[in-house]
Amino acid sequence: MVRAKIRVELKDGVLDPQGVTIKNALVDMGYPEIASVKSGKTFDLEIDLDDRELVETKLDEMCRKLLANPVIEQYSVEVYE
Amino acid sequence: MVRAKIRVELKDGVLDPQGVTIKNALVDMGYPEIASVKSGKTFDLEIDLDDRELVETKLDEMCRKLLANPVIEQYSVEVYE
Repeated sequence: MVRAKIRVELKDGVLDPQGVTIKNALVDMGYPEIASVKSGKTFDLEIDLDDRELVETKLDEMCRKLLANPVIEQYSVEVYE
Repeated sequence: MVRAKIRVELKDGVLDPQGVTIKNALVDMGYPEIASVKSGKTFDLEIDLDDRELVETKLDEMCRKLLANPVIEQYSVEVYE
């Protein structure tokens, strides 16, 4: 069993409407010092395999197929025990 | 100007339907070794202030008021230059 954390965020230059909405909400709530907000997603996985290299290869596949949209998002994978 | 990363995730024991859906989708896609998936959110902020302690206090407020639901979610705040 290994654990992994996957982080997915929009590539630089891609419009982030959720981030803009949150930024505007924070400014309206009395935090004018907020200059920008960028939103992202994380996935914490438990995987029933012990071969870390195999896990990394599979997680990279999963990111490209389901967890991230490689056209507009970048992702990172971190595997640990 | 300081930068901060906020991580928000469901507390242990809180049902995570998004995580369960993703786990089932991955199993159906040919990854039966996935034992669990837990979803979370991240926010990367730029803040026009230089006092890191003040920034940490304000970010904690923002998390409780808008970015996280303290009843079911836990959050962490990391401030860096």
